[in-house]
Amino acid sequence: MQISEYFSNPRSPYLFADIARRVSVFKGQNPSCELLDMGIGDVTLPMSKTVVDALARAAAEMGSNDGFRGYAPCAGYDFLKDAICAAKYKNTAITPCDIFVCHGAKEALGAVTRLFAAGSRVILTEPVYPAYRDVNEMRGNTVLCASTGREAEFIAAPPPFSADVVYLCSPNNPTGTAYTRAELEKWVDYANKCGALIIFDAAYEAYITDSRCLHSIFEIPKAELCAIEIGSLSKSAGFTGMRCGWLAVSPKLVRGDGLSLKDLWSFTEASHSNGVAYIIQRAAEAALSDTGLAQTSAQVSYYRKNAELLAKALRSLGVYCTGATNAPYVWFECKKNKSSLETFDELLCAFSLVCTPGVGFGAGGEGFCRLSGFCTCDTAKKAAAALCEYFRP
Amino acid sequence: MQISEYFSNPRSPYLFADIARRVSVFKGQNPSCELLDMGIGDVTLPMSKTVVDALARAAAEMGSNDGFRGYAPCAGYDFLKDAICAAKYKNTAITPCDIFVCHGAKEALGAVTRLFAAGSRVILTEPVYPAYRDVNEMRGNTVLCASTGREAEFIAAPPPFSADVVYLCSPNNPTGTAYTRAELEKWVDYANKCGALIIFDAAYEAYITDSRCLHSIFEIPKAELCAIEIGSLSKSAGFTGMRCGWLAVSPKLVRGDGLSLKDLWSFTEASHSNGVAYIIQRAAEAALSDTGLAQTSAQVSYYRKNAELLAKALRSLGVYCTGATNAPYVWFECKKNKSSLETFDELLCAFSLVCTPGVGFGAGGEGFCRLSGFCTCDTAKKAAAALCEYFRP
Repeated sequence: MQISEYFSNPRSPYLFADIARRVSVFKGQNPSCELLDMGIGDVTLPMSKTVVDALARAAAEMGSNDGFRGYAPCAGYDFLKDAICAAKYKNTAITPCDIFVCHGAKEALGAVTRLFAAGSRVILTEPVYPAYRDVNEMRGNTVLCASTGREAEFIAAPPPFSADVVYLCSPNNPTGTAYTRAELEKWVDYANKCGALIIFDAAYEAYITDSRCLHSIFEIPKAELCAIEIGSLSKSAGFTGMRCGWLAVSPKLVRGDGLSLKDLWSFTEASHSNGVAYIIQRAAEAALSDTGLAQTSAQVSYYRKNAELLAKALRSLGVYCTGATNAPYVWFECKKNKSSLETFDELLCAFSLVCTPGVGFGAGGEGFCRLSGFCTCDTAKKAAAALCEYFRP
Repeated sequence: MQISEYFSNPRSPYLFADIARRVSVFKGQNPSCELLDMGIGDVTLPMSKTVVDALARAAAEMGSNDGFRGYAPCAGYDFLKDAICAAKYKNTAITPCDIFVCHGAKEALGAVTRLFAAGSRVILTEPVYPAYRDVNEMRGNTVLCASTGREAEFIAAPPPFSADVVYLCSPNNPTGTAYTRAELEKWVDYANKCGALIIFDAAYEAYITDSRCLHSIFEIPKAELCAIEIGSLSKSAGFTGMRCGWLAVSPKLVRGDGLSLKDLWSFTEASHSNGVAYIIQRAAEAALSDTGLAQTSAQVSYYRKNAELLAKALRSLGVYCTGATNAPYVWFECKKNKSSLETFDELLCAFSLVCTPGVGFGAGGEGFCRLSGFCTCDTAKKAAAALCEYFRP
């Protein structure tokens, strides 16, 4: 048996696993220390009452003769596809039958590579969520980086060359920047001109407050001709430990000799998945109900305010940063001549503060670190004070 | 954007989708008719009380400050890995850290192809669960069929040529046959000699009653050098609509220049998945507890007895069939000169009985049909009577 040739090089450990190891070592050495964890992007507030109630009801159904459900439809139950469309795709070309429920954004972002020819040229906007790179390199695709950087305010513009696929994440992980309509229109034009496919990761759309930024790429006319959007309840409804997201793809998205990517996705999913648990889908439906959205948007505001508090502290000291306005993340510039890993280590050792070193998001992230607002307000305040002390001249 | 070259041929619809369509048409034309559904292999009994209670408890935890859990460990919580090992891998080389919890057997059977070099030569024992073929063809692998057939009692022996990968399913879907220790030892010898990887699908192991047959391939010495086993709670604990399974792989399984497939699987999963929901893992743990196993084994017996009832009826008429003793399925020979699709249509139209035509499991399944015991005892009795009428000379 030959192992996939794209695994033949030894690889560095996945960023978050490496960070977790370093933090674990620190905790072992400082057992009484209160950690200010602004590192990994995991939510911390309990699930909303509406969601928990829906879970309990669905669990009871599964234990009854009348309510038991076996295999779910591979693309998801109609009740959830309807709820997703009503909550997220009003005034777009996307209809419930264009929604494919899945186990989460990460799962969809990797699985979608099955559609691409091996060796596809894939543009990533660095700094970038490392899984985009990993899943594409594991398929033998060529990754091209559209570096963003401070001079571009961490917003990527289409490059002068063509590509097969572009991954865009807005609001962005790790930079917290969100693309405006005008900025996204350039990418849609680019993709429609060169025949590229845009994979639009909208996992953080619930955090948008700037009205110039779009919640869905399908708000742009003709985006349905070039884009697949991936949505998630992880960061909007606290579903990181529940696993539910979706993929939206219009029947108008065709490539090759008129092949519909929606049909191909449907076919490949039917062979690779038996869908998402009924109880999880009922919980997701509840999260997208009016009551659910009210409860979860309170959580979203809470996390974003934590990020805003951190951003405000940094800006008051003249530290350049992006994010917070439309995202749970703050992306800040390290001290002059300090690498992101050095900054990570200094903050950990001196203040028990965990951030994520930007280099973990690719070379384009060097010189910056990410702070996450997924913590308590109290922790955010302590972290802001620690950052003030760290950056005070 | 170029679509994967392995999607370039138009494909027939996935078997079960096609069957569902035909049945749906029949139901539309015969709305008052009671369907005897022995077709798709989905369970029908409600989840056991232990499982439902565990779900309710876990849902409440997720709604509390102390009990909330975000991202699960990618490979699964220790409590579930321990429970899987205790219930399934006693007296084998497999330890809890060799278990990777996943969304189900189907999901793992497809995802594991990421490990194989493109163009791998993959042996399937036809008739075969069609997803094995589909996921491998979508990767550009070459599928080689080890046909089984009536003369071999639908048990495949290793071929005289070498291959990269072998998928074995025991007890088998669709034939209901289970491999004995002696038969599996031949495959382990074969794989260890030619360096092949065995993907052992043990989704139906809970149905085994014949003591010569193995519940896990790891009961054979040196299987850990050549096999990955995939387990599931779908058919043993009614989890088809819950989605939980696992992959077991020993650190001793190495290929290439000493590369550990366990390490590679761990790496690729970390990029493609954020694990399985906490509440689902708690439900799975409950299903594998002593009380859970007692409750679910009653369900397993119920389904198997349905299959035995069908097999008995067929054998009393001199119809050749396999299965039932170690499986929820019966695999029966069609009337002379009748194709499996003709048999399907005749049984549907004359008796409202839904079976699965063998040709859907590959050319090696032609001339046979599959009956599923996943129904009520009452339905099984009616189906047995219908089969008697159909086959009576």
